[in-house]
This record gives sequence, structure tokens and C-alpha cells, in this order.
Amino acid sequence: MSKFFTITKKDLDTHARLGRLVTAHGEVETPCFMPVGTQGTVKAMLPRDLIEMGCQILLGNTYHLYLRPGHESIRRLGGLHRFMGWDGPILTDSGGYQVFSLGKMRKISDKGVRFQSHLDGSSHLLTPETVVEVQEALGSDIAMALDECIPHDATRDYVHASTARTIRWAERCLRARGAQNQLMFGIVQGGLFEDLRRGCVAAMTPMAFEGFAVGGLGVGEGEERLHAIGSFTVGLLPEERPRYLMGVGRPQDIIHAVRAGYDMFDCVIPTRNARNGTLFTFQGKLNIKRAQFVDDPRPLDETCHCYCCRNFSRAYLRHLYMAGEILSSQLNSLHNLYFYHRLMDKCRQAIRDGQAELWRELGKITDGA
Amino acid sequence: MSKFFTITKKDLDTHARLGRLVTAHGEVETPCFMPVGTQGTVKAMLPRDLIEMGCQILLGNTYHLYLRPGHESIRRLGGLHRFMGWDGPILTDSGGYQVFSLGKMRKISDKGVRFQSHLDGSSHLLTPETVVEVQEALGSDIAMALDECIPHDATRDYVHASTARTIRWAERCLRARGAQNQLMFGIVQGGLFEDLRRGCVAAMTPMAFEGFAVGGLGVGEGEERLHAIGSFTVGLLPEERPRYLMGVGRPQDIIHAVRAGYDMFDCVIPTRNARNGTLFTFQGKLNIKRAQFVDDPRPLDETCHCYCCRNFSRAYLRHLYMAGEILSSQLNSLHNLYFYHRLMDKCRQAIRDGQAELWRELGKITDGA
Repeated sequence: MSKFFTITKKDLDTHARLGRLVTAHGEVETPCFMPVGTQGTVKAMLPRDLIEMGCQILLGNTYHLYLRPGHESIRRLGGLHRFMGWDGPILTDSGGYQVFSLGKMRKISDKGVRFQSHLDGSSHLLTPETVVEVQEALGSDIAMALDECIPHDATRDYVHASTARTIRWAERCLRARGAQNQLMFGIVQGGLFEDLRRGCVAAMTPMAFEGFAVGGLGVGEGEERLHAIGSFTVGLLPEERPRYLMGVGRPQDIIHAVRAGYDMFDCVIPTRNARNGTLFTFQGKLNIKRAQFVDDPRPLDETCHCYCCRNFSRAYLRHLYMAGEILSSQLNSLHNLYFYHRLMDKCRQAIRDGQAELWRELGKITDGA
Repeated sequence: MSKFFTITKKDLDTHARLGRLVTAHGEVETPCFMPVGTQGTVKAMLPRDLIEMGCQILLGNTYHLYLRPGHESIRRLGGLHRFMGWDGPILTDSGGYQVFSLGKMRKISDKGVRFQSHLDGSSHLLTPETVVEVQEALGSDIAMALDECIPHDATRDYVHASTARTIRWAERCLRARGAQNQLMFGIVQGGLFEDLRRGCVAAMTPMAFEGFAVGGLGVGEGEERLHAIGSFTVGLLPEERPRYLMGVGRPQDIIHAVRAGYDMFDCVIPTRNARNGTLFTFQGKLNIKRAQFVDDPRPLDETCHCYCCRNFSRAYLRHLYMAGEILSSQLNSLHNLYFYHRLMDKCRQAIRDGQAELWRELGKITDGA
């Protein structure tokens, strides 16, 4: 059952592990970061630039693709890979996260979630069965089960009931699956309550999921609880299946989670921050809007080998941002995603070579300057 | 004096010629098209993609760069080439065209043009001397003299007086020049009046310009007069210096002008149309917004070898446009500029190989379907 995932090395000092995940569209070395391709494109990025930076796997958003252009349209066009010109592995989320973000525009029951489209107000029902059907139409390599992403300030009663429903939905997703060559991951909820997280893991690990995600974190609970509940939950999950921390996050969160034993990550931070002019370097973040860069001839990061840092100055990047040029989003996204991939390289290298020094260096990365 | 320009072949049936223009940043084979890099970037294009499609030379807008980030800032940063990461030839306009487009925000006198910045309303004076100074600070390979681009419906008296001033400004530009390694082109005005065009050419050809541009066309006078005055004027210009038809235009206009004897072109049409979803093919234009493309698995143009046509369907391009994705502008711009460069390839090939058949094929290109 776990032939699609092999742990190739375990770190001696932490819970970090090096792994190899085999999908229908190729192998992924873990720990890995998945750039988010919300509407069938990683914003402002050509697929070839993703390949060039060593990107191994993308995330696609089922909710957005279901509404526009529609999963049946994508199926007719040969599936999501061909549609977006990406031959490598793709993981699709279930659509649940976006639907739950709609607030008053959705209504939840055991059957599923009824919601109104943010595009045209039309009414739709997302059930465990439909999210499986949609993801099979998209033809992703890894599908996610339907879950409810619970607000961090929900009451214990709500978290308890919601998590029980997520468990029932997980079983229905597995019963509904029909696709060959598509892995399916279950999603562990349970909010900030350790016993509910434990109960959810206990209920789900006997199920035939090829991997597990931990959801409901990085949603406003704060760094301390994110790290605490994240570490607690990953410690309960079976070793031999891949573990995915959904939607998290900042570089320091990813490093913490890799050390705790997570294998997979996705987050919009690198691309969204890029479009807002916030750029990552191993010396800290940098806000390219600032007047201090107006005449700065240096590259963003003198240690970075990305196309942006090899060819352009901070002064030019500031100019593009101030002038509202599209190229600003292109170059900034390219750099930030390159940074995230280098970050994962460093994590894998630290595990592979048992480099305590590299772990210490990575541990110094913070969100601030 | 004309060692920087060599005519390598003349077409037997038309006035078209094949040439080689030598600049400080390399050679350009003419007839050539110059993508417009308004604010120090060809919108939505990485320089490496321009190189890959065979782009030989860019146009930079002096007006925009003067206002933001400022020519002194660009000079301090090593000049426009280094600033925008483009090692090849660059032609800069004089800034006059943009200033005259400002309408009531500018006031013209023999001294120059006083105008208010479209960015912050600040007041500036552009004179023949300052446009030379600014272009030398930018470090372009080809600088343009200051001219007034006359509205097509101006009275004969206005055109006469304005053209006389443009001639006086041309002399002042030449006197002001100091840069080595920078060519300077004069601009022929004269509106739609053949005798005034003739007078302007007669006054300017004795001047020490390395090339001549024809301005004031493609500004609303209509196709017939554009072609008539364009052909009339180019026929008056000296053979041994390059001839540049400014701001024109549509594929059929460029083909017409190549046959009339023009060597250089620039226009925002390929990039602006790209961002609006209008795409060029050798079978006609295509509006990617249209519902007919919703499930169309074909590339934009099956005969095109650009990155966009090799990897993506019309359905995908339509989806990107409808979803407002940045990648829409990137892929569409890439395709349209590739088309314009193929168009110039075909023109050069028709001249080089004396292919009457290819000229006939090119002559069928229209703006319509």
C-alpha cells in the first residue's frame, strides 16, 4: 500500500524525514513545497519557469476550476495537466476550504455544503461524492477528501461535531473514488483540542488513504498554537504515509513543520507577497516599495541565482512596482517561488547530510528583517 | 558617414530593401520591428523571451523614463540597458509624442514644450537640448530629435509653422549632441501636405542625421492617406540612410511600408491588443474573449511555433482572459510579438530571395478575420 511513498532518510536530531512520493506524473522528493495554481495558473508564472526553478508539484484549487471553466470542460480538454501545460504532479484540494471561506454564502449539512458562487451567485452543492467526481475529472495525481476547515475560535462543541462530520465525509470520499492512478489524502481536523485531533487521527488512520493532511491550522490561531498543535498532530500520524500541512505558510513555519515530521506544504504567501512587493531573502524580508531602494544597484539577494537576481537591480524592481508594471509581478513571483524552493532544498540537504549547522542556520529565519 | 548602415539587397519589384544597421550594442537586420518598452519594460515580457523570439532592438519612451524613475537615476544605475536588463540595441524617442498627447497640459513655443506631468502635475520644460541630454543619460543607441507630432486635421498654416519649428529644433538637437556611440535620427513632419513634406525633407537631408523618421502618420488620417503620404515621403528620403516610420502599425500597414522602402517600425499594437485579448495569426485576428473558444482544444495558430502556441489551447487562453489572470497578458503578448517578428522575417525573406509569391501572400494580410 505504501509503495508510492518511501522514506529514504530520517534525521537523527529531529523528526524530519526525506522521502520519495511516486505519482502518475512523476516522482516528488519530500519535504516539498507546492506553489498554488488557483485558477489553472500559478499567478504570473510560465510553467517553464516553474520547471527551471526545480518545482516538482503544483496545487490546483477545485473550487475555482469547478466554477470556471468547469471540471467537465477541463475533462473534455484532456484534464488539468494538459489544460494548464504542466506535465508534472498536481495535487487538488477538495474545494472545501474556499467554500467555508464564503461565510454567509454557504450552508452546511451532513449531506454536504450548499454555496453560492462568488462569480455569479448561482447555487451549488458540494458533497463528498461530488468533490471526488470533480477531482477525477480534473485528473489530478493526488485528490483531497472533503473536510470542514474550522475557524480557530470555534467552541469545543462545534469542533467536536464538525470533526465527526469530516470523518464521515472522509469515508464517503473513499467509497466514491473510482480513478486509477489518483492518490487520495484524508484531512485531520479537531481544532486546537488535542483529544479531538487524537480522535480524528484514530478514526482516519485505519482508512485506505494514501496520505494525510492536517487542516485547520494557520487560520489565525497564532504561531505558538500553530506550532504546538501542528507538532502534536503530526506525531500521531502513521510514519509510512506522507504528511501534508495544509496552507502553512511562512518560511519559519515550514522549517518548524519539517523538523516536526511534515512532508508537504502549500501556501499563497510567496506569490501573493510578490504581487504586493514583499520579497524573501535568506537575510530577511524586503519591501521593494521603500524609498531606500530608489538608487540601489544591488540585486534583491546577492546570494540568489534566480533570473531576477541575476539580471535586475533593486532600483529596477522598485521602479516596476511603482509604475504598476506587470513585469513587477512576474519577476517578484519568480524570485519568491525560487526562494521557497531553495528553502526546501536546504531542508532536504540538512536531512540528507545530517547537517546540524544548516538546521541552526535555517532556525534563524524569521518573518522580520 | 553611412558605415553604420549597409543596404545588402534591394527588391526588384518594389522599393523594399534589406539592410544592416550597426549600433553600439550590436547589429540589426532591417526591415525590423521594435517592441515598445514604455516604462523600461516591454509590458509583460521578460527580456529573455524577447531574445528567444528574435527581437533585435527595443524602443524606450524618453517622456516616461524622464518622469519616472528619472534619467539621472538611470544614468547613475549604469544606463537604460543595464537598468532594464537588455543588452541589445535600444532606440529612444524624444518624448515629444507623449508631451503633445497631453493636450491642454502642455504649451508650445519656439523654446520648447512646457508640460505638466501626468503623474503629479509638476511642471517641466522639454527643449531640443534637454531631449538630447536625457537620451544621452539613458544611453540609448539611437536618439530621436525633438519634433511636434501634428494632429491630422490641423490647418495648412499650422502644419507649415509647426514643421518649420520642427526643422529649427532638429538643428538644435544636432548642435546639442555630445555622446559618442549614439546615432541620431531626424523626424520629417509636414502633415498630409506633399509640398510641406517635400520642404521638410529638403531642409533636413543636408543635416548630419544618421537616419530619418517619418512622423505624424497613423494618427487618425485613415489607411488611404497613411499609405499615400507614407509612400510619397519615403521616396524623397536619401537611399543610404535608414528610414523609420514612427508608430505604425497594423501588419498590413507595415507590409505596405516595407514595400515602399521603410526599414524600421515600432507600435504598441501587438502588446496592447494582447492585453485586450486580440491575437494575431497569419489567418487573421482572433478575439480570445469569444464564447466559440470555450472548448476549443487547438492552439491559437497551428502554424505558429511560439511558446504559447506550442503549449496552450485557445480554451485555456480564453479561460485566463476571463479569469483576469496575469498569465493571460504574458502569453498573449508573447504570441503577438512573436507574430510581428515572424512578419518581419517573412518580409526580409521576400526581399532576400526575391519571392514574388511570398509578397503576394503577405499582401493578403488584413486587419479583419
